[in-house]
Order: sequence, then C-alpha cells, then structure tokens
Amino acid sequence: MLVDINTALEILKNSKNVLILTHKNPDGDTLGSAYSLCYGLLYLGKKAKVVCNEKLPKKFEFMLDENYPNELEQDFDLTEFDTIISVDIADPKLLGERLEGIGDKIDLVIDHHPSNTMFGKNTYLVDKAAATCEIIFDILNLLDIKISQIIADCLYTGLATDTGCFRFSNTSSKTHLVAAALIELNCKYKRINEEMFEKKSRARILLEQYVLNSIEFFYEDKCAIVEVSKDVMTQLNVKEEEFDGVSAIPRQIEGVSAGITFKENDIGYKISVRTDNTIDASMICQSFGGGGHKRAAGCVISENFETAKKMMLDRIKQEIFK
Amino acid sequence: MLVDINTALEILKNSKNVLILTHKNPDGDTLGSAYSLCYGLLYLGKKAKVVCNEKLPKKFEFMLDENYPNELEQDFDLTEFDTIISVDIADPKLLGERLEGIGDKIDLVIDHHPSNTMFGKNTYLVDKAAATCEIIFDILNLLDIKISQIIADCLYTGLATDTGCFRFSNTSSKTHLVAAALIELNCKYKRINEEMFEKKSRARILLEQYVLNSIEFFYEDKCAIVEVSKDVMTQLNVKEEEFDGVSAIPRQIEGVSAGITFKENDIGYKISVRTDNTIDASMICQSFGGGGHKRAAGCVISENFETAKKMMLDRIKQEIFK
Repeated sequence: MLVDINTALEILKNSKNVLILTHKNPDGDTLGSAYSLCYGLLYLGKKAKVVCNEKLPKKFEFMLDENYPNELEQDFDLTEFDTIISVDIADPKLLGERLEGIGDKIDLVIDHHPSNTMFGKNTYLVDKAAATCEIIFDILNLLDIKISQIIADCLYTGLATDTGCFRFSNTSSKTHLVAAALIELNCKYKRINEEMFEKKSRARILLEQYVLNSIEFFYEDKCAIVEVSKDVMTQLNVKEEEFDGVSAIPRQIEGVSAGITFKENDIGYKISVRTDNTIDASMICQSFGGGGHKRAAGCVISENFETAKKMMLDRIKQEIFK
Repeated sequence: MLVDINTALEILKNSKNVLILTHKNPDGDTLGSAYSLCYGLLYLGKKAKVVCNEKLPKKFEFMLDENYPNELEQDFDLTEFDTIISVDIADPKLLGERLEGIGDKIDLVIDHHPSNTMFGKNTYLVDKAAATCEIIFDILNLLDIKISQIIADCLYTGLATDTGCFRFSNTSSKTHLVAAALIELNCKYKRINEEMFEKKSRARILLEQYVLNSIEFFYEDKCAIVEVSKDVMTQLNVKEEEFDGVSAIPRQIEGVSAGITFKENDIGYKISVRTDNTIDASMICQSFGGGGHKRAAGCVISENFETAKKMMLDRIKQEIFK
C-alpha cells in the first residue's frame, strides 16, 4: 500500500527495534540511507540494525560509527524486531539470497525508484527524489533528529553517488539544497568525492581501456554495446566494486542514444541500459523482468552473450526506430 | 589595487559602455561570467560587449542571446568604452595575442584565482568562490538585475565546469545554494550537463584511449605523466575544445599525488598539473611562470618534451620527497 509521509513517520515513531534492509551489491544510496536512518533511530533511543546480502564494500567503511559496530553480514533473529524497513529497494528480488525470505514481511519500504513493485505492507515512494538519501534527510528532520557528521556523510554519499555527483538528470534544486545543508553540517564531502569519483585503481584504468577498445556500434551508431566477461574481470584483476560507473561509458559517446553494458555473472548477463531522453531505459529493462529509472535501468538475461545481445538489440531496435 | 564588493558595484553602476574581456582558450567560467555580466548590464540599460582571443567554441554557443548578437572575435574600438572589465583572468598574459595590449587598461578585474597578479586598476578577488560565476551571481543580485534564463544558463555553466560538476574540492555549500537558485530560475542544467560532461566525440574517446595507454609513472608511482603531441592531436583528429578534462585523467589513478599532462603547442609544451592535498600545484606552476589553484594549475615550458619533462620532474621531486 502506498502511504504518505505522515504514515511513514508514525511507523518510525512507533518502532522500538528496527531491522533495516539494503539491496544486494550495495551502493552509496542504499547504504547511506540505511546507516543514516539507523543512527537517527539510535539517537531517538530505539534499537536498530542494518543488514545486507553482502559485506560492506571497503570504500563505504567510513559509514561505520566506531561507537556502534554494525557488520552487515552478522546473523540476526527476525523475531527480535518489531519493525522491518527496506531502503532504496525497488523489488524484493534485489534483497539477494541471504535476505530473500524477508521480502513479504517488510513493514515500510522507503524508495525513490518509479519502478518500485509496492511489495511492502506500507510503501513510502518519492519518485522525484534524486536519491533515497534525499527522502531520509527529510524524514530525519521531521523526526527532530540531530544530523551528526556521520549521518551527514552517509546522506551526502547517497546523494552524490546516485546523481553522478549532481550531474545526472535526476538532480533537482532540492538535491543541491540538501547537499548545501549537509556541507554546512560538516560532512566530509571533499574526501567522499575523492573516494567515490576521483580515485581509480590501476585495475579500473585497465578495465576502462578494455571497455573503450571493445565497444560495438549498431543502428546507425545510436546503440553502443560492451561485454565484460568473467574471464576479463579475472584477467584484469578487477573487483566487483571497481565496476561501478563503467556502464556509463558507452552512452557518453556522441550520437549514442542507448549504451548497453553486458556483464557476465553466474547465471548469464547482468545488463545495464543507459539512454538519452529519446528512449526509456526502464521500459526496456522491464521487458526482461528488470527495472530502474528512465535513463538508467538494469536487468538480467540468463543466456549466453550472443543470445542475450540479440534479445536486447531486437528490443532496442523497436525503441530507436519507433 | 584590491577592492571590496562596494567599490566593484560602484564601478559597475557608474559604467555606461563596458568592454568585457575573457581569457584565451575560453572555458565555461570565463564565458559564463562574461555573458551573464554583459546581459545583466544590458538589462540595466548600459552598453556592453564581450571579446576573446578566440571565437566562441561550438559547445558554448547556447550562451549567445539571439536578441543580442555578440561575436567574440568582432573588431572593436577601445576608445568607445568607458569601462574595461576582465572576468576569470588571473594574469594579463592569459588575454592572448589579440587582446594583449589591453592588460594595463583594465578598470575592474573580477576573479577567483588565488594566484591573481593584481594587474587591474581595481581587483575584486574572491578566492573562496568555486568559480567566477559564483561571484557574478552575487553581483547581479546586488545590482537588482533580474536573472533571466539565459543568464542562469551562463552562470550554471561556469559553476559546473569549474567544479567538475560539484565534485572538486573548491565546491562549497554556497556553490550548491547558487546552483539550487539557478535551477529554480529554470536554467537548462540537464542539457548543459549533458553537453559539458556526458557527451564525448569519437575523437575524444580515441584521445582518452591514447592517454590511458601512454601514462608513465615516476617516484614510486606518485607522479603520472602523459604527453600529447601536436601529431597525436592531428592523427586522432581531436579539436582543441575536446581536450578539456583530459588533464584530470593521470591524477585519478590510485596512489598518484601529481598528474601532469604535457600538451604540445607552437612554442613548446602547455602543462597541466593536478595534485592531491599533499602537493601545491599552483606553487609548482609558479616556478615556471604559470599559476592557478592549489590542486589544479598550469604553465608553459618552451622546450622539447624531454627537457620540459625533466624540468617538471625535478620540480615535482622536491615536493614529493620534501
């Protein structure tokens, strides 16, 4: 059921012991939302715990409050919690294997993805928000929670990572106002930007070289496709978290309306679709059981590369020549 | 002479016919500052004209108001103007050949570079400003000038390009507040970001491949160097304006404290120095008659590559092992 901000606030106010779920392959927004909400609830004297399918990627370790150890992979007993909340999760499938049984027990879903499947008992969805962290910022303020420096760091990370540092079309004046407020609250934005956007490992540089060298063009060069196989990831010694942002590369080329990145996984290909304003990426990915935003979406096709590529190209063709 | 905001405003208020100078190889900030100030002065019923050493790069053509044709390369008669203003220019050398005689006639220098040589009769310097456009935004407001959409577009472009779209360490809460205000004023930020940051020509992609493939490392990999010769620019068919941002690449590699890009020109090498917080790029470039900001600066060395590289490496070494 879709709920408004007041219902969402009531659920939070009435909670005593809260389990906060993040999506698998966690990014800055799901983690920033979860930790900032967690620290906010602790500030109110409640109990709260953040969990995830995977452990916390190294680049997000600064989100851990040293006074409050919170390992994402720790065991937990569902019966301990009176309230279960998910943040930045559009679909229960994104909980991942470890948390998959909890998908239908979620009391409050807080999200900004227009493709949200409304799987929560209550869903507070703000699809205009650039990031779920933008929503959490408002919630914390409405609950009169003091935004400490670590909360500000978490929130800024979500804002910055989900907007390509305020570059993508989801950025709004509100996003900038929240960023300004977080900087005034002493968030370490310089260090966060450096960590999230500036620094590239040698392996990442090699991966970018590989991607630039292997782009294939289709449909009058309006569609650009890149495949990154498991073998390539192993050969270049690229960690999963170093792959972030690579899927933006094919779409950046002048004249390309749809940039598609095929990344091999254990069951086939995880596909990222990035588009310009002429093509709806979310619609394309929904055809394959995925989803996301209008200009950045994803899906999985459990086929070999040639088949997955043909399926995707046929679908893209319909949009390009519609 | 350094002046405060009140003196700067007085000069602007008392002006009738204003010549606005931009720096050579014009970027988003010098052009955004110049055109927004020009349109603001026109709004007040004054005359104003923007000039530059070069013609307006294609990607900035949206800054031209169709009601007010203003070609940067047009001839002009200095005696027509009662007030000469430069924007975003740290040193009269940056005026370029065509405008070089005007360097000592400038009534008001408006700038944000800490390395400004104070060459104006009056210099209004705000070195905390992320971009000169941030200063112009305040000036326009203090002069009660209505910020039209095209003025907002010009100002946003300067803010965004000088901060790497709010990513670099010069970004402040103020920068975000100005961006939020400009978005509220309907600036076309989505299209501007797309044009400035997203779109890369095929030639640019080839150039990035070349740069990634040819980086040399020195001093325990803390210094990364790239040379781009005139021959390479010609072979890859790269336009000057497509080079923007390339000098950020070497510094992005993990562990690199100083990333140096050597770009061949007619007299030797134009050198961009990008550093992390352990090294002052501006100081290094000042040793060679250049200047800029702490973490991004530039200079020219009129030598062949091997000599220029050796001179720069010796200077960098002093900083890395100090």
